[in-house]
Amino acid sequence: MQIKFGENIKDFSDSVSVLEAIKAFDRDVLKKTIAAKVNGEEVDLSKKLDETDEVLSIEPIVTDTRDGLEVLRHSTAHLLAAAVLDMFPGTQLGVGPALMEDPRYGFYYDVIAPRQLTEADLPVIEKKMKEMAKRNLVYRRDEIAKSDVLEIFKERNELLKCELIDEKVETENASIYYIDGSPFIDFCLGPHVGHTGKLKAFKLLALSGAYWKGDAENQQMQRIYGTAFATQEELDAWLKQREEAEKRDHRRLGKELDLFSIQDDYGQGFIFWHPKGGAIRTDMENYLREELQKRGYGMVFTPHIAKRQLWQTSGHEQNYADSLFEPMGMPEKFGEDTEFRLKPMNCPFHIGIYKSHPRSYRELPLRYAELGTVYRAELSGTLHGLLRVRGFTQDDAHIFCTPEQVTGEVGDCVDFAYDVFKTFGFEKFKVELSVRGGADNKGYLGSDADWENAEQALVLALNKREIAYERIEGEAAFYGPKIDIKVEDSIGRLWQLSTVQFDFNLPERFELEFIGDDGQKHRPIMVHRALFGSVERFFGVLIEHYAGAFPFWLAPVQVVVLPITDRINEYAQKIGNELKNSGFRVEINLKSDKIGAKIRDAQLQKVPFMLVLGDKELEENKIAVREKVKGDIGQMTLEEFKVMAQKLKETRALTNG
Amino acid sequence: MQIKFGENIKDFSDSVSVLEAIKAFDRDVLKKTIAAKVNGEEVDLSKKLDETDEVLSIEPIVTDTRDGLEVLRHSTAHLLAAAVLDMFPGTQLGVGPALMEDPRYGFYYDVIAPRQLTEADLPVIEKKMKEMAKRNLVYRRDEIAKSDVLEIFKERNELLKCELIDEKVETENASIYYIDGSPFIDFCLGPHVGHTGKLKAFKLLALSGAYWKGDAENQQMQRIYGTAFATQEELDAWLKQREEAEKRDHRRLGKELDLFSIQDDYGQGFIFWHPKGGAIRTDMENYLREELQKRGYGMVFTPHIAKRQLWQTSGHEQNYADSLFEPMGMPEKFGEDTEFRLKPMNCPFHIGIYKSHPRSYRELPLRYAELGTVYRAELSGTLHGLLRVRGFTQDDAHIFCTPEQVTGEVGDCVDFAYDVFKTFGFEKFKVELSVRGGADNKGYLGSDADWENAEQALVLALNKREIAYERIEGEAAFYGPKIDIKVEDSIGRLWQLSTVQFDFNLPERFELEFIGDDGQKHRPIMVHRALFGSVERFFGVLIEHYAGAFPFWLAPVQVVVLPITDRINEYAQKIGNELKNSGFRVEINLKSDKIGAKIRDAQLQKVPFMLVLGDKELEENKIAVREKVKGDIGQMTLEEFKVMAQKLKETRALTNG
Repeated sequence: MQIKFGENIKDFSDSVSVLEAIKAFDRDVLKKTIAAKVNGEEVDLSKKLDETDEVLSIEPIVTDTRDGLEVLRHSTAHLLAAAVLDMFPGTQLGVGPALMEDPRYGFYYDVIAPRQLTEADLPVIEKKMKEMAKRNLVYRRDEIAKSDVLEIFKERNELLKCELIDEKVETENASIYYIDGSPFIDFCLGPHVGHTGKLKAFKLLALSGAYWKGDAENQQMQRIYGTAFATQEELDAWLKQREEAEKRDHRRLGKELDLFSIQDDYGQGFIFWHPKGGAIRTDMENYLREELQKRGYGMVFTPHIAKRQLWQTSGHEQNYADSLFEPMGMPEKFGEDTEFRLKPMNCPFHIGIYKSHPRSYRELPLRYAELGTVYRAELSGTLHGLLRVRGFTQDDAHIFCTPEQVTGEVGDCVDFAYDVFKTFGFEKFKVELSVRGGADNKGYLGSDADWENAEQALVLALNKREIAYERIEGEAAFYGPKIDIKVEDSIGRLWQLSTVQFDFNLPERFELEFIGDDGQKHRPIMVHRALFGSVERFFGVLIEHYAGAFPFWLAPVQVVVLPITDRINEYAQKIGNELKNSGFRVEINLKSDKIGAKIRDAQLQKVPFMLVLGDKELEENKIAVREKVKGDIGQMTLEEFKVMAQKLKETRALTNG
Repeated sequence: MQIKFGENIKDFSDSVSVLEAIKAFDRDVLKKTIAAKVNGEEVDLSKKLDETDEVLSIEPIVTDTRDGLEVLRHSTAHLLAAAVLDMFPGTQLGVGPALMEDPRYGFYYDVIAPRQLTEADLPVIEKKMKEMAKRNLVYRRDEIAKSDVLEIFKERNELLKCELIDEKVETENASIYYIDGSPFIDFCLGPHVGHTGKLKAFKLLALSGAYWKGDAENQQMQRIYGTAFATQEELDAWLKQREEAEKRDHRRLGKELDLFSIQDDYGQGFIFWHPKGGAIRTDMENYLREELQKRGYGMVFTPHIAKRQLWQTSGHEQNYADSLFEPMGMPEKFGEDTEFRLKPMNCPFHIGIYKSHPRSYRELPLRYAELGTVYRAELSGTLHGLLRVRGFTQDDAHIFCTPEQVTGEVGDCVDFAYDVFKTFGFEKFKVELSVRGGADNKGYLGSDADWENAEQALVLALNKREIAYERIEGEAAFYGPKIDIKVEDSIGRLWQLSTVQFDFNLPERFELEFIGDDGQKHRPIMVHRALFGSVERFFGVLIEHYAGAFPFWLAPVQVVVLPITDRINEYAQKIGNELKNSGFRVEINLKSDKIGAKIRDAQLQKVPFMLVLGDKELEENKIAVREKVKGDIGQMTLEEFKVMAQKLKETRALTNG
């Protein structure tokens, strides 16, 4: 039997395990290898390789890759379930996947224990997991007849697992995983680590409610969240980042700085922007509007509802039913049986404008931009501050163009996105190119040529800018490939924000056309793109990125005027009002508190500049300026301060010089 | 019997008619008197005055007042019905009121004729009305037992009238009006002119569908619209204005200038702002946002839907049921039975922000402003372009303040409104102060003291500014008095736009509070105010006011670059792009049309400036500038033009100098 490993090929006379094979090639890499791919398929290291005529290709899955981390976390989820079963015999198990995109958690397992679990149980379960980890318990895979698997779980009275097996297994056999020396068995494809001793750095993090299969009509379960890393150092670093993230939690800062609220009386998942948050949003939007005009976009405004039928034409009712609020009618006495739906997306409306009169190639590209507020049904349990909501405003745009124009348009979108992020203080990006393929068949629309041309256009635009990207198969939407841009925030977390996306679907469904220079009808190419993504979500990211200390141009209060004594109040008001009239956001603190308390207050509110005014300043008609980080930066005239502040505002400076 | 007329009192020994009494005082005024008020009650001139001990006070109702015009129009509506009955015996009559607020019509009568009427019938009916007018047919009033009235209409088989009489008459007697010498009788309170000869200037205008009592479940009727004035000159002037208005119809211009559309596939009454309309809206909103910040408003953003329960707390569900879209739910599988409603108003959301934390008197006044899009159910038959829609954006604000602050706040609102209107080129205003009272009891909320203090505050604010106003009893909403500001457009039509309104209702319902300087809890005063009113409607008014020829700062295309030959195209693009980069909205017309055609095209699009470029301009590196009204204004450098244009833009100039 021949096995290929990297560039090397070796002969093996007898059946060997994957582990033995790798050992024969590279003893060093084995240390951090916890699973492997054989001819592209993920398998356990313990797998015996059957005699075959073809050359088997083996790739190790190592812990410091995403694939490796996923195996590690998935195996830790099994360990968690084993510990729970050990401590609470009779526990019903749901599912327990690794989480690779969630910034908060690395895995979970859903359980129904004989008694309700509490937060206090988590350290005890974690301790049990650690004990089991030290005992190097083996993850043993078995592949047996589906009926036998069902029998095993039926005997264990694990009815949820039985339901899952019934639904998922379409082959004769199914695989199950034991953790030897524990009561745990799982129906699972694997792969897993060889034994629990490989799990050296994990932590349980939270407990929440969940429904079996995410459906509120099913059994209620408890979800235990945790995370795992390859090393304790990595886990510690991540926990530190998490702690730092908690300090910057936009929900806490949103309340402390009076930026926004969510009010259960009005509905969960809807954002109320208070004046201070609204000032920031207005600046964010003003900046966008300026840029959009410069870059040749037309600002459009469209309704938030449309006839139900429209959403059938667009396919939203068929493809996104679970994200749509139910339809609503007109007052019964109107005798008008039209039904309407809140819009989950702006696309069909921009198409409506495109179609409002016949188009010529001379008009293309047409770029329609809208700050369009959309509404999507989300389970209340998944809502999270500004990051996951039921109503949000997309900085949405749709570009209708010819095939010749599309690479240029996509490139311009990417440039625009980078400019936006740099303006808001982000410097590191991760770009992903999502194309069709992979295991799931999403019922991709469009021809092979469509997909190839589109990918080509996206790649060209990236290459021209020397932007490195990761190509991900199977991550495209069913209607076209896309570029996603993630930004790294000040504590190293990645946030998915911008997307530039081809759409082969809507131009067909709405029969979009333009008359080419050949006098014939052609179908335009349609590109969706959003840069912030969602104004709400981007605001949440900004709050956490800046920990609430916004740069001068965005700060909801830019300057606070602090008279040292009541004698100075009048002068303080004069100074404050002059700054207000110059267009700055100013607060004048006339409370009779001591100046130290007033400064502390302004620091807590993260105000960029404090003007401290005493007898000396009044006498000399000057102001003493404190900057929030640097402290006292000296005395100056109001005029001097205004020039400096105006420059910070106009240049959208990120720091105060 | 003593009768007072103006300052004079006379004795009348016998019973006299109103007409005879007035004749005794003032023969001149009698000429234009068509009805009168006796002790404030409107009556026919033919009314006999009963002997009484009290002094009767008589005021003439003359044709050149609103009250007089209303009598005239109401009488003309009777004449219309009489003519229809004469021509089409068996016609069922509905109602036929005067219209005093509708810019398009002066009265209507709803009928069900034995055959469907068509537009072609209108001149014939009008001719019949004129014949009847010449015959001086007498309007005769009779007051008889309700049962007898019912009997009369039953015999005539006028079943709709019977229904009306049954519902409306709560007294023993009811009044009916004949037009002697015609088959017409109406159930009516009057007053009316003495005879048809008084009706000298009327015209039928349109025919439309209508429902009995405005309810789509009732019989379908036909509505005949007309108008009437005291003199032919006034009618002619009005018809001319109407013709001028038709030329400026915002629906026609909206399409010709590609400003907006309404798309039936998406729903009637919803506005799609195209890029050119969107550019204007963006400028309108930018101006507002600038002013709002300067004037100490906080910009807030709130959701478009809220839980159904919220609208019960606010009272909207009880008081405005017919204006609300039906509630909608979440996807069924969520198992969440919350219902939501689209918002018809923004007020409850601003209240939500007010209530998000306890308030101190130190924070007041709080001024929350939002460009808040609201949705209201309207019968499809009443929709009209941008003027009457189902979704619109209010430039809404709510002010929460102490009683001491309210006069100042109201005054600031009025100043703000005047500044806004002047910026947009309106110079004449009509101010109305609407207070409670009059015949209708609207179930006014709030104490007498509340109403008096509020009226006092409104009056003080107006008086301080020496603003003349009309005080109208019974026009206030049930929750508080208000100031309405109407503007007169360039062809003399009045448009109701701004409103500044007290609210005694919501602060109670939502239990708003602030802690006063006495440490006690107080209820704040809440003022609603909108200046544009609705951004959509104001845009419609602007289109008609300017007849589509917007001033430079608002023009969707500010400059068009017109190369005379292809040789100049490159130079044209260079000039155009430099202007675009300077922030102007520019089109470059590279079509191979003749320059005359290109200029005509730009004229039709009402573009403020045309830059005509030929060999001479290229050679001298200059531009030849045409202004849309003045024509050629000479050659200049691009820099000179930019300075001029920038100044027009920054000063929001109404004309191009």
